[in-house]
Amino acid sequence: MTCNPDLLIKNIGILATPVGSSAKGGKEQGHIELIEGAFIAVKDGVITGVGKANNLMDFKPAENTKLIDAGGNLVTPGLVDPHTHLVFSGWRQKELSLKLKGVKYLDILKMGGGILETVGKTRRASLEELISNGMKALDRMLEYGTTTCEAKSGYGLNLEDEIKSLAAIKELNRLHPVDVVPTFMGAHAVPAEYRENKKEYIRLIVEEMIPRVAREGLAEFCDVFCEEGVFDIEESRYILECAKAHGLVPKLHADEITPMGGARLAAEVGALSAEHLIYATDDGIRAMAKSGTIAVLLPGTSFYLGESFARARTMIEEGVPVALATDFNPGSSPTESLQLVMNLACLKYRMTPEEVLTAVTLNAAAAVKRASTIGTIEVGKQADIIIWDAPDLDFIFYHYGVNLVRTVIKKGKVVVQRHERKEI
Amino acid sequence: MTCNPDLLIKNIGILATPVGSSAKGGKEQGHIELIEGAFIAVKDGVITGVGKANNLMDFKPAENTKLIDAGGNLVTPGLVDPHTHLVFSGWRQKELSLKLKGVKYLDILKMGGGILETVGKTRRASLEELISNGMKALDRMLEYGTTTCEAKSGYGLNLEDEIKSLAAIKELNRLHPVDVVPTFMGAHAVPAEYRENKKEYIRLIVEEMIPRVAREGLAEFCDVFCEEGVFDIEESRYILECAKAHGLVPKLHADEITPMGGARLAAEVGALSAEHLIYATDDGIRAMAKSGTIAVLLPGTSFYLGESFARARTMIEEGVPVALATDFNPGSSPTESLQLVMNLACLKYRMTPEEVLTAVTLNAAAAVKRASTIGTIEVGKQADIIIWDAPDLDFIFYHYGVNLVRTVIKKGKVVVQRHERKEI
Ligand SMILES: [Zn+2]
Ligand SMILES: [Zn+2]
Repeated sequence: MTCNPDLLIKNIGILATPVGSSAKGGKEQGHIELIEGAFIAVKDGVITGVGKANNLMDFKPAENTKLIDAGGNLVTPGLVDPHTHLVFSGWRQKELSLKLKGVKYLDILKMGGGILETVGKTRRASLEELISNGMKALDRMLEYGTTTCEAKSGYGLNLEDEIKSLAAIKELNRLHPVDVVPTFMGAHAVPAEYRENKKEYIRLIVEEMIPRVAREGLAEFCDVFCEEGVFDIEESRYILECAKAHGLVPKLHADEITPMGGARLAAEVGALSAEHLIYATDDGIRAMAKSGTIAVLLPGTSFYLGESFARARTMIEEGVPVALATDFNPGSSPTESLQLVMNLACLKYRMTPEEVLTAVTLNAAAAVKRASTIGTIEVGKQADIIIWDAPDLDFIFYHYGVNLVRTVIKKGKVVVQRHERKEI
Repeated sequence: MTCNPDLLIKNIGILATPVGSSAKGGKEQGHIELIEGAFIAVKDGVITGVGKANNLMDFKPAENTKLIDAGGNLVTPGLVDPHTHLVFSGWRQKELSLKLKGVKYLDILKMGGGILETVGKTRRASLEELISNGMKALDRMLEYGTTTCEAKSGYGLNLEDEIKSLAAIKELNRLHPVDVVPTFMGAHAVPAEYRENKKEYIRLIVEEMIPRVAREGLAEFCDVFCEEGVFDIEESRYILECAKAHGLVPKLHADEITPMGGARLAAEVGALSAEHLIYATDDGIRAMAKSGTIAVLLPGTSFYLGESFARARTMIEEGVPVALATDFNPGSSPTESLQLVMNLACLKYRMTPEEVLTAVTLNAAAAVKRASTIGTIEVGKQADIIIWDAPDLDFIFYHYGVNLVRTVIKKGKVVVQRHERKEI
């Protein structure tokens, strides 16, 4: 039985992948299928065969089949980054030196810096500029192995500019090989003009933004920054319940700086995921395990801000599926590299290489509701595949700080091929 | 006055460089010259002109002049990595999982792992294999902006295999665009066969290895691992004094794990640099300031091992010139990226971007005795230059975790040109 594949990847040293189509918590998170000496066959962007080299004869290459020699290297599913603030204008590198000199974030805000600077610049930016910025970030993500990412609005903070941000995300998804999954996050902050009238801003979100976003199909998810001084538990609940009523799936930035009970709220509203969770309580973690809410942890942000690290081990042991993301944004985590995030999860969360791989593939796919189509290398899944410059899974956690991606395949097409240096 | 340059770099947004030909400590370490709208002219691999664009007319390009448009980006000197264990065989990725499971390093050693595994594999490796491994690591270093590195022997630990390692370093220096500066480190560890007779191993180092290395001109420096259970203060002093007598310049791995008085010893023997220094005492730091010994700090190692971080701020304030290095090696720091080290120095040592730039250029050049030829962008220095994908110096510390190098120029030749992704 030959299947005439478009693409055949041979000479895979070790194929490492989680299996299945739903998020894994507890001991299951560490369960990775390893196939030594594997091959993968792809047709029309979908995986049609995976197995040991000796079964390869079933997949005879045709004349037009592209053959890739994996060189005895590690192969994994493409990485999924389930939490980014992709679309904005205005990097804020000046703040790093200020912070190093001891200037407090609140004083930076008073000087017109911080998130308000990004909101101002994002509002003034054209759609084209937002798209151009996003393309550059997506190029870097792809170079480091990310084949699908989530992207939140939330630097517009008014109807027009939130819509503009979501329109940019839609266009980026169309233009770029990376699949971009849209999340509406009008409740990212209270804009300056509503500082004395948060109620009115919430009304705007609930009565104008969410209905419009839902009607135009501009987002799948709705996220809220539940934090002291931003949106409290009851405000967050109100916004997310309204989003659900309009068909948007809830997510929640929870317990990052203050233990607010955000984890429990996420469970109560049936959020697909809760993010950050640095100060999530035992009670909140157990509630999430029960509701099946995925923990999207952001160790890059903890690292960059010098924050504490979330209790990933407790979450995994309590059965909460843990996913990992960059939190890519211009303030608290200016990085596109999921690889560094994977290193940090290993070194700082004490997650095993197997748990981390599940966290950036299957669990991350589940956190953006894509676990039935991506996140594993199995027959029937989309052919989003990475060939690493590494002999085994341990190696990519051990050899830190450099990009170990060799080849990125998206929907069966080679979209990144990194070469050895050659004299120019 | 035209000078008919080989190479002309134009449209430099900001040129950032330390100035001078000696290591800078104290406030001087933070002094960086910034030229907005700069150009650089190069002839025969040497910088012949640096200045504002309006002086560019003095450097009329000839027909064969290569023109590079820096695109308004940041330009700095090439990075110098003054502490690597470049030459070895045998990655040890298996140890990461063991460590995460709580297995102690001493138990890994008993299982035949740790440094002894690398020593065994390095001894069994051919010269060609060591060169091939080294080439791959140098390719990565260059890709991340390193144009000169130091390389230590120290996984041979007998006459023949130390010489083999130094021969590999010599050949790598010849073959690869990165300049490789050789350090003899037979006193990296006590090999298993001398465990009960360290005196005899020290005799071997002092009477056989050092004279041979010096006679054959295989190293410029001699380094010793001064640590509890390895070489104590008096043994280290004895080896380094002997090295000096043979014309090798002393360096010292000092106070990494135990406060041994290593910093003071480094000052006393007139070491050019002391390395690690995590537990250096106030007294030792002051002695180093007085002797002009450079502190080569290794934040990647602290990060990877979960060690404490050296007191860089104290050293700078006491007037010790601080350099930074990867410590690239298969056990405690498997990374080639000086960029991540720069990020860590900023975030963990609280060094400013300006101090870090001096630490990886001029001070690092001084730590390998090359400050008169490299480490700054000034007329008369070798044309080792980086064009970054960044608008200013702060940006490369802020936008962390990804490779921001755009172009690497070594001795006036473009050796790395990173392109934007294109559809394949
Ligand atoms: Zn976020
Ligand atoms: Zn070392």
